[in-house]
Amino acid sequence: MTVDTIKVGLCGLGTVGSGVVNVLQRNLDVVQAHADCAIELVHIGARRPNPNCDPGALTSAPKISEDIFAVANDPEVQILIELIGGTTVAKDLVINAIQNGKHVITANKALIAEFGTELFALAAEHGVVISYEASVAGGIPIIKTMREGLAANNIEWLAGIINGTGNFILTAMAEEKREFADVLKQAQELGYAEADPTFDVEGIDAAHKLVILTSLAFGMPLQFDGVFTEGISTVQPQDLAYAKELGYRIKHLGVARRHGDEVEMRVHPTLIPEEQLLANVNGVMNAVLVHGDAVGPTLYAGGGAGAGPTASAIVADLVDLARDLSHQQTPAVPLLGFASDQMTPLTVQSMDELHTAHYVRLTVQDKPGVLSEITKIFSSFDISIEAVIQKQPKSGAAMASIIMITDVVREGRMKQALKDIESLSTVSGPATRIRVESLD
Amino acid sequence: MTVDTIKVGLCGLGTVGSGVVNVLQRNLDVVQAHADCAIELVHIGARRPNPNCDPGALTSAPKISEDIFAVANDPEVQILIELIGGTTVAKDLVINAIQNGKHVITANKALIAEFGTELFALAAEHGVVISYEASVAGGIPIIKTMREGLAANNIEWLAGIINGTGNFILTAMAEEKREFADVLKQAQELGYAEADPTFDVEGIDAAHKLVILTSLAFGMPLQFDGVFTEGISTVQPQDLAYAKELGYRIKHLGVARRHGDEVEMRVHPTLIPEEQLLANVNGVMNAVLVHGDAVGPTLYAGGGAGAGPTASAIVADLVDLARDLSHQQTPAVPLLGFASDQMTPLTVQSMDELHTAHYVRLTVQDKPGVLSEITKIFSSFDISIEAVIQKQPKSGAAMASIIMITDVVREGRMKQALKDIESLSTVSGPATRIRVESLD
Repeated sequence: MTVDTIKVGLCGLGTVGSGVVNVLQRNLDVVQAHADCAIELVHIGARRPNPNCDPGALTSAPKISEDIFAVANDPEVQILIELIGGTTVAKDLVINAIQNGKHVITANKALIAEFGTELFALAAEHGVVISYEASVAGGIPIIKTMREGLAANNIEWLAGIINGTGNFILTAMAEEKREFADVLKQAQELGYAEADPTFDVEGIDAAHKLVILTSLAFGMPLQFDGVFTEGISTVQPQDLAYAKELGYRIKHLGVARRHGDEVEMRVHPTLIPEEQLLANVNGVMNAVLVHGDAVGPTLYAGGGAGAGPTASAIVADLVDLARDLSHQQTPAVPLLGFASDQMTPLTVQSMDELHTAHYVRLTVQDKPGVLSEITKIFSSFDISIEAVIQKQPKSGAAMASIIMITDVVREGRMKQALKDIESLSTVSGPATRIRVESLD
Repeated sequence: MTVDTIKVGLCGLGTVGSGVVNVLQRNLDVVQAHADCAIELVHIGARRPNPNCDPGALTSAPKISEDIFAVANDPEVQILIELIGGTTVAKDLVINAIQNGKHVITANKALIAEFGTELFALAAEHGVVISYEASVAGGIPIIKTMREGLAANNIEWLAGIINGTGNFILTAMAEEKREFADVLKQAQELGYAEADPTFDVEGIDAAHKLVILTSLAFGMPLQFDGVFTEGISTVQPQDLAYAKELGYRIKHLGVARRHGDEVEMRVHPTLIPEEQLLANVNGVMNAVLVHGDAVGPTLYAGGGAGAGPTASAIVADLVDLARDLSHQQTPAVPLLGFASDQMTPLTVQSMDELHTAHYVRLTVQDKPGVLSEITKIFSSFDISIEAVIQKQPKSGAAMASIIMITDVVREGRMKQALKDIESLSTVSGPATRIRVESLD
């Protein structure tokens, strides 16, 4: 037996909400052909109208409520799309919808990363699902890929450019040799960055997404506490230039890697070899590189944010749900990819135990013997140097620069070595240190 | 109600078959955790054992039959994995399995591209599905992505490197400045190319995959007849070098683009701008670039062939099926992504109507006025030239080379212009012409 029409409610009519309305308006034919049933947006909850979309132009005009909870309480609504954002009202709304037996689709990475465990349990209790494809990497179907497409693999590690704002800023800084603050201002004017850019540029948004990807990769419960984050606000144009000279690009990566019962979870600027596809993902694009033991490396790239890509993911979730609901079936994919009794908690590894190569830039006095002093200290810590560039002082300046790429070393040891180096009288100020990943 | 164990048969124990056995052996824990049920390989059909795998080492040793049809007739088998290849015995086997009410998983692109319509109809009649993720681009979950992940989009076009052998050869020719025949021989020694390499290097294998992707993209029935194919055996090392000089790479692409009721379907060597991610997909890697109206451009890259990537896709299909079957549910995704009554036949566009830019290399007499004669003819056909390189004769040689990139032009007109140019007394031999795609 099949059901003819799936009825949907939508809360939040901002950029993404209007994107969803527009996709359902423009592409209803193809969406319904994929779902093999009719899909009707019956109720929109939004405090105010959005001039960028006209819900009245949908095939069947939806009811509009200023109170978003009216949608969660509407008995006609089978699936509620939550596009409010944040973890307060949005959380109450999602709980309300689940308790009313509605399936939920959300783009809310903070909500899933921080409260997913509790919400998924509540959904299971009520026999509904929470779909969240749009929460990570926008229009790239990375959640589906990890939950289903790569299900045959033990995932070894993943690394992603999962914040479009940050990638836009680093790309513009690198290509146009501009300062961070200057490009950030432009990103804000273009609407790529929020008025308060902290979440994007300090890596918190990326950390939320990394938490979700890490759970899917290793079958561990969602764990936001303990993710290491380092932002891009301290990256200098000269470091982008030196990295390029050495055959690398600097990207703001989220990286997760499993070691037995431990897991690395970290977001930080990273040098990656220029021949890696990930190094060539520029501007607001996102990309995730996933390494499975059977498939090897696979990469997924596309628009990571904005109305179109996010709506694409939201409506894909809607089609998935509609396909099952119209056949009166329950979606069979576990919400985090692994059966809930097969999830294994892993301990987040201390950053001091991390092993990576490093890019180091030092400001030094321009006189003989300085490089020798520095390499002697590295050597005493058993740290090999893979490449060195020495830059003479600019005319009039007294200080020179030494730029090095080290071999892979334990982070704790690297920090001790740099402490000794920074205490040399010939070295001025703190060292600039950026982690390097070969991604092999 | 759930079923505890899903029982699987496997026919064909070559490279891919042994890969599947090995993945099920090594990763059974993670596979079953994803499927939320037990999966048991109960029957293998293979004419001879494969020294690279030991089915006896599986948790529960499967029955082994030399007669592959014994697997299709085994009442215990719920899902049959077809890894025989070809379109004769494999077709009979698949029909036999379907008629016995078994679901089928296959990596067989030729079978799906040429006989998919008939086989899918038979499957529908018997209430089973045919899964074929492994048939295109190996371990990249591109079928799932197009059927489900991008279901919100009207797909505008797609372009893919979908034959690893061809990409290995072109990459080695470009990077090592070697001749086609020489690299082909190496590819054969490495096991990347068959003894008869026709399917790979002439684009037939890529055409099979393109047929499948085109159906999924535009909701058109599978249509192998009429796909234009041009192989890589005529690509010269000098063309790879000139392309690079002009800021391009040459890749063997499958391209599909919709124009209303018509569709382009073509496989040929193509110049693409070096800054495109697709231009940087090298060696045996595959990648597919899909352009949806909501999501924009998205790219999927990974291992396109071989035991590991193909087994990854086969076992992902197995997990998908097991998830539904263990819940006694029917997979709800239409086999070609669109509900079967929503498929629309499209006419394959004549190549003369194709609009692309072109790379043209001419061998000419080294004397004044030759370039002017050539550009005058292009101009008379209203064809603009975007870039020109003139190469003087090597010492001792009489003939020079002219290399040009044209603007976008109708292919029929381009052919006529080249015919006139080739008839000039100052031009020697036929022109080399390679299509150029901006991929924007």
